[in-house]
Amino acid sequence: MLTNLSAILDKAVSYAQAKKIDPAVLLAARLAPDMFPLSRQVQLASDFAKNSTARLAGQDPPRFADEEQTFEDLKARIARTLDFLKTVPAAALEGAEDRDIRVPLRDRALEMKGLPFLQRFALPNFFFHVTAAYAILRHNGIEIGKRDFTGNV
Amino acid sequence: MLTNLSAILDKAVSYAQAKKIDPAVLLAARLAPDMFPLSRQVQLASDFAKNSTARLAGQDPPRFADEEQTFEDLKARIARTLDFLKTVPAAALEGAEDRDIRVPLRDRALEMKGLPFLQRFALPNFFFHVTAAYAILRHNGIEIGKRDFTGNV
Repeated sequence: MLTNLSAILDKAVSYAQAKKIDPAVLLAARLAPDMFPLSRQVQLASDFAKNSTARLAGQDPPRFADEEQTFEDLKARIARTLDFLKTVPAAALEGAEDRDIRVPLRDRALEMKGLPFLQRFALPNFFFHVTAAYAILRHNGIEIGKRDFTGNV
Repeated sequence: MLTNLSAILDKAVSYAQAKKIDPAVLLAARLAPDMFPLSRQVQLASDFAKNSTARLAGQDPPRFADEEQTFEDLKARIARTLDFLKTVPAAALEGAEDRDIRVPLRDRALEMKGLPFLQRFALPNFFFHVTAAYAILRHNGIEIGKRDFTGNV
């Protein structure tokens, strides 16, 4: 999904060039005034991928500063996220369904076993932010379709 | 997720009443001219839930006519979807990861084992349409937040 998202960002860059749109306009685009803009949606997709995987593997999630300013920056963050995911061997996730997971949130801590954490928190949130990024760009005219989202299944 | 979506539709109905908006306006709302409207997003969330579960259980997916015209109709469809899901016992999904899955698409048939089908097709598509429904309503001013989407995790 992150690889697909990176390719979608490429299409946004091409679209901005073709239409002479400042890429910063797209990076700051939102679907509602109190929803996050595109750049933050991509950061959060990265966060849910790396943090959830790390927690399920019993590791401390790597922290990435949220300093991305350009599409290139966001693509680099996705690449860095994928690099991290590759460092987690499948064996580290053995038995993760029963692991005690603790996620600090703004106003409370989420505590649950690994399986419900994956099903009810990690996956819904990850897909939410990837879809939100897609939807923002779609709403702004970028020519992408569902297969850009799912990739070549 | 479907139960959460049903509660989000309730909030959309309340919003329409409070603002004196014809509910049909929200049902037909889209994020882009060539994206599906809210009503179709809900139908597709239902389809991906019931069809994917049926296929993984080795059953023929139940067909629902796409005739919903109102929020009540859409809520009834979600309820019917949940009723179907409850008829599939966990035992029917034993070994589903290795089952041969075949999905007829518009222009081809998708053929893959159960696990990649779940990971790369069923889950991304299901979450896509639930998120799209949420995003359309959010874009139209309905006061919902991420916790309406994820529910009480």
